[in-house]
Amino acid sequence: MEIIAHIHNDFPTKFGLPRQSALAPSLRSRITFEPAYRNKDAVRGLEGFSHIWLIWEFSESMRPAGAWSPTVRPPRLGGNTRLGVFATRSPFRPNPIGLSCVELEAIDLTASDAPALIVTGADLMDGTPIYDIKPYLPGTESHPEARDGFVGAAPWRPLQVEIPGEIRADLEQKLDKNQLQTLIEILEQDPRPAYQDAPERVYGISYAGLDIHFRVEGFNLKLC
Amino acid sequence: MEIIAHIHNDFPTKFGLPRQSALAPSLRSRITFEPAYRNKDAVRGLEGFSHIWLIWEFSESMRPAGAWSPTVRPPRLGGNTRLGVFATRSPFRPNPIGLSCVELEAIDLTASDAPALIVTGADLMDGTPIYDIKPYLPGTESHPEARDGFVGAAPWRPLQVEIPGEIRADLEQKLDKNQLQTLIEILEQDPRPAYQDAPERVYGISYAGLDIHFRVEGFNLKLC
Repeated sequence: MEIIAHIHNDFPTKFGLPRQSALAPSLRSRITFEPAYRNKDAVRGLEGFSHIWLIWEFSESMRPAGAWSPTVRPPRLGGNTRLGVFATRSPFRPNPIGLSCVELEAIDLTASDAPALIVTGADLMDGTPIYDIKPYLPGTESHPEARDGFVGAAPWRPLQVEIPGEIRADLEQKLDKNQLQTLIEILEQDPRPAYQDAPERVYGISYAGLDIHFRVEGFNLKLC
Repeated sequence: MEIIAHIHNDFPTKFGLPRQSALAPSLRSRITFEPAYRNKDAVRGLEGFSHIWLIWEFSESMRPAGAWSPTVRPPRLGGNTRLGVFATRSPFRPNPIGLSCVELEAIDLTASDAPALIVTGADLMDGTPIYDIKPYLPGTESHPEARDGFVGAAPWRPLQVEIPGEIRADLEQKLDKNQLQTLIEILEQDPRPAYQDAPERVYGISYAGLDIHFRVEGFNLKLC
């Protein structure tokens, strides 16, 4: 397996990263190919597709070969229910392969690293290696009626995000509009590690070169 | 990358195999895990999902390392238009990884090789190695509105399948109802290799231990 590309975005670490693709639809990433695969012909026709698949490596989740666990505790279930690893999208699986559906916003054919793919809604952290890129085929891959097991049984309620005026003014100076919107989408998804419920505790994520701090009480998240 | 499982079905070769998942929805396959990954706990909760992803190896399409071509000619376009390999699902890609969405019909927890997954609609030939199995998440992976590039621009017209009475009687003896239905779905998809239009020529595919022969004229396929 050869690394064909890497993704680049505002998430230097996995903390705060959306837990699935499409959860932060505004999050913009840039995919650049490795020199051996940097060829405009190789993406010819891709512009006709609105969505693409990324097959990538959970590069931060590497475990020693053979050290897999048959069960994991999905954060979606509060981290206290064990499910089979193949019934989840957990990174801790026998082969550390991730699969993400992202929107293809544009293909940059003129930059020095062209062709580069501009995508939104990815759940990959900055620098993640990519093994394959494929077009999304709605005719055979769109199943709105599919049963979604524990995911549907544990409906998600987004947090209410509060940004005090002074902090907002500062963020508006340092982030562009898309980045600020993305940050709000990220915070709505509750970026705390699982198993935690501590209203006084200050959490932090790194985003776009900034350290973002917040507290959470109930369904309210407040920047601080 | 470790092989975690293999798929088993009635297709000993790639000839006749559906070109995408879901094109032969009746085609039933059985997925058995390698001994090191054969663990009922590892699929706990998977029964709650109606569809699953298979990430697998194009094991018949191996090319020497580094021998990739930036463009391919999709059969869907008649085999005479070149598109970028990343704009297609061609097996001839830098990493020979396949991605298929299949329906999970049942999980066999009692056979000697349990747990085994019974799936329908796969496009993998018998014996194909599997790297990963993941639940399908309709909330983030179902996009009926997605633009599908050259696929949508080249709508598919199924062939009309004619089975002469004597051949049908023979097939009904040798195949069960599901296998016969699957065979018809396969033939409707036009299993000829691309670039060919020769009404007199007899084509053959191997299916369920039988050699199936047919001719095609226009949009009519006749067993012979």
